[in-house]
Amino acid sequence: NYAAKGYASDRIFAPYTVYKGKAAFSLIPCLPTFTKLNSGTVVVDRRGSIMMTFMHSIGERKYDWEKRQRFALSATEVGSLITMGAQDSCDFFHDPSMLSSNAGQVRKSLSIKPHANGYFVSLTVVNNLLNTNDYFSVPVTTAEFAVMKTACSFALPHIMGWDQITNQQSRGID
Amino acid sequence: NYAAKGYASDRIFAPYTVYKGKAAFSLIPCLPTFTKLNSGTVVVDRRGSIMMTFMHSIGERKYDWEKRQRFALSATEVGSLITMGAQDSCDFFHDPSMLSSNAGQVRKSLSIKPHANGYFVSLTVVNNLLNTNDYFSVPVTTAEFAVMKTACSFALPHIMGWDQITNQQSRGID
Amino acid sequence: NYAAKGYASDRIFAPYTVYKGKAAFSLIPCLPTFTKLNSGTVVVDRRGSIMMTFMHSIGERKYDWEKRQRFALSATEVGSLITMGAQDSCDFFHDPSMLSSNAGQVRKSLSIKPHANGYFVSLTVVNNLLNTNDYFSVPVTTAEFAVMKTACSFALPHIMGWDQITNQQSRGID
Amino acid sequence: NYAAKGYASDRIFAPYTVYKGKAAFSLIPCLPTFTKLNSGTVVVDRRGSIMMTFMHSIGERKYDWEKRQRFALSATEVGSLITMGAQDSCDFFHDPSMLSSNAGQVRKSLSIKPHANGYFVSLTVVNNLLNTNDYFSVPVTTAEFAVMKTACSFALPHIMGWDQITNQQSRGID
Repeated sequence: NYAAKGYASDRIFAPYTVYKGKAAFSLIPCLPTFTKLNSGTVVVDRRGSIMMTFMHSIGERKYDWEKRQRFALSATEVGSLITMGAQDSCDFFHDPSMLSSNAGQVRKSLSIKPHANGYFVSLTVVNNLLNTNDYFSVPVTTAEFAVMKTACSFALPHIMGWDQITNQQSRGID
Repeated sequence: NYAAKGYASDRIFAPYTVYKGKAAFSLIPCLPTFTKLNSGTVVVDRRGSIMMTFMHSIGERKYDWEKRQRFALSATEVGSLITMGAQDSCDFFHDPSMLSSNAGQVRKSLSIKPHANGYFVSLTVVNNLLNTNDYFSVPVTTAEFAVMKTACSFALPHIMGWDQITNQQSRGID
Repeated sequence: NYAAKGYASDRIFAPYTVYKGKAAFSLIPCLPTFTKLNSGTVVVDRRGSIMMTFMHSIGERKYDWEKRQRFALSATEVGSLITMGAQDSCDFFHDPSMLSSNAGQVRKSLSIKPHANGYFVSLTVVNNLLNTNDYFSVPVTTAEFAVMKTACSFALPHIMGWDQITNQQSRGID
Repeated sequence: NYAAKGYASDRIFAPYTVYKGKAAFSLIPCLPTFTKLNSGTVVVDRRGSIMMTFMHSIGERKYDWEKRQRFALSATEVGSLITMGAQDSCDFFHDPSMLSSNAGQVRKSLSIKPHANGYFVSLTVVNNLLNTNDYFSVPVTTAEFAVMKTACSFALPHIMGWDQITNQQSRGID
C-alpha cells in the first residue's frame, strides 16, 4: 500500500509559487544532510535552506525555467522574513563563490520592500564571469506573504534539523 | 493493535463545525494528491484546500446536509484568513466552471466581515443553470475564529504538501 | 528497542503543572476517540479537550490529589485562552450533568483574570448533590501563561483530530 | 534503506549557533526521559530543556569548547524567551547544586537585554569551589532572535513531553 509507506525514498516537488505578470518565484524547503561520525553521533553536513527560484515571464502563463535564478535563504534569513512587519524591508547579499578564487565575481541580492498592499520581492544577479545582469521583481499580496511566513515558520525547525532531534523517541526505559 | 497502525488507509472525518441558529458551517483540510513522474520525482497533482461546508438550519439541532454548499479555500485564501485583524474583512470569489463552457454560470462568494465580538462568515451561491440563489450567514465568536486561525495555520503546510517534503528523512549517510 | 517503538500502546502522563502556595493546577491534552462506520469512514466519537486538574495545597510541596477537581477545556475554550491579550479576562461555565435529570446540580466555573504580572486562574465547583463548594485560585506568571498558550496551540489540532487527517499519506499514485 | 529508518537509535547533534567576535552560544533541545510505572503508565523522569552552551573566542573562527559553560532553560524559562517584546529583558538564576551540601557555591545567571537592533545574551558563572568567574556576552540580531523564538516554540511541546501524548494514536475502535 503506497499510502502507508509514504514517499520516503522519493524526491517530492511541492513548491509554493507566486505567478505575476513579468516574473514568478517559488519557495521550497531544502532539508539538511547529515553525517555519522565514528563516535556514532550524527551531525549536520550541509545546512538546510528555503530555496527561492525566480523565472521571467515569456508569454501567457509561461515562465522561462531555463534562465531561472536561485537564492537559498539560510535559517537566519528565514528568521528575518518571518518577523517582518507591514512596513519593514530587508536585503540579503550572497556570493556563491565566497572563499574561492572567484569570490566577488557573482553577486546576488534579494530585496523585500513594502508597498500599499503587500511587498515587492526582487532578485538581482550580477555575474561578471558570464557578463550578465539579471533582475526579477514580483509583487506579493499580504495574503501571499502570510502563506510564505506560515510555511517558512513551519519549515524552519526542519531546515535546522531540529525535527530530527525531536523525532528521536525519548529513552529512559528498559 | 489498531492504535499502533493508525488510520492510514481509512478516510477520517473530523470537521470543526460552528453551529448557529440559522445555519452552520464546517472546516476540514483536504490534502493534495501527488503523481510520480517517470523521472521518479513526485509532484502535486491536485492542490490541497480547506473545505468549508455550509448548511441551513431545519429545526432544533438539525441542519440540511442534502442542500449543503461547499467552498474550497486555497492556500493563499487561507493566508488571508489567518492574518485577519479584528477590524479586517475579506471576500473571495470562485467560479467552479472557470475555463469551461459553463464559465460564469455558477458564482460563489465567501465573505468574512467583522462585528462587535467576532465575524459574520457568509456564503452566496448564484447558480444560473439551476436558477437557484443560496445564502448562508453564520456569526462566529472571537474564540471560534481563533480556533479556525490556529487550525488553518496548522493545516496550511499540509495542504501545500510541505509536510511530505519535511517528512522525507534526510539522506547523506551510507 | 523500546525507543524505536515509542509508547503507542501505553498511557503517557506528562502534565504541565503550575504549583503555587495555596493550590496548583495542571494541563494535559486528552485526545479524541474515533469510531469506524460501516462505510469505512472514521468519525470522532468523543471530542478531545485540554484537561485542567486543580488541587489544594496540604503542606510544603504537597497537594491533595484525592480532592482534585477537573475542568475539560473544549476546542473553542482553548481558542479563547490562546488569543487572550494581557488585559483580557474570560469565564467558562460547565454543567457536567447537562441534559440529564441532575442538570444544574453541579456547576463549575473557570475564570482567568489579569493581574500586574500575569493572570489569576480560578475554579469554583458548587455541588448541590454533595452539598460542597470548592474554590481554587492560582496566580500564573506571564511566562507560565506563555507556556500554556504555546502548548495549547500545539495541542489544538490534535484534540480536534486534524492531525489524524493530515497524517494520512496522500493517495494518488498506483 | 537508512533514510526510511531515520536516526531513531542515534544521537543527533544539530545546534543553532550564534558566532560573534568575543564569544558564541548554541541552542539545542534536550528531550525528557520517561519511566514506566508498574501500573503501565509512563511518566516523565527527567524534564526536558533547551540547552544553551557558551564558548569564548580563541582566534579567528575558533571557540574554546573545553571551557564551555552550559545553562539549561526550563519550559517556563522558554515561555519567557518566546514572549519577549523588542524592549523586554529577562534574567534567570540557576544553582546547579541546589538542595545539596554545595548549594550556593556555583551561581549561574543568564541575562537577555535589548539593544538598538536585537539583544545581548550574557551568561555569568561564579564558581566558589573552583574560585572561577566566567562571563560571556553575545550580541544577537533581531533575525537571529526570531530563529531562537520560532525554534524554541517548536521545541517547547517536545521538551514538555506533549508530543509523546499526541503521538499516541487515539483508541476507540476494536
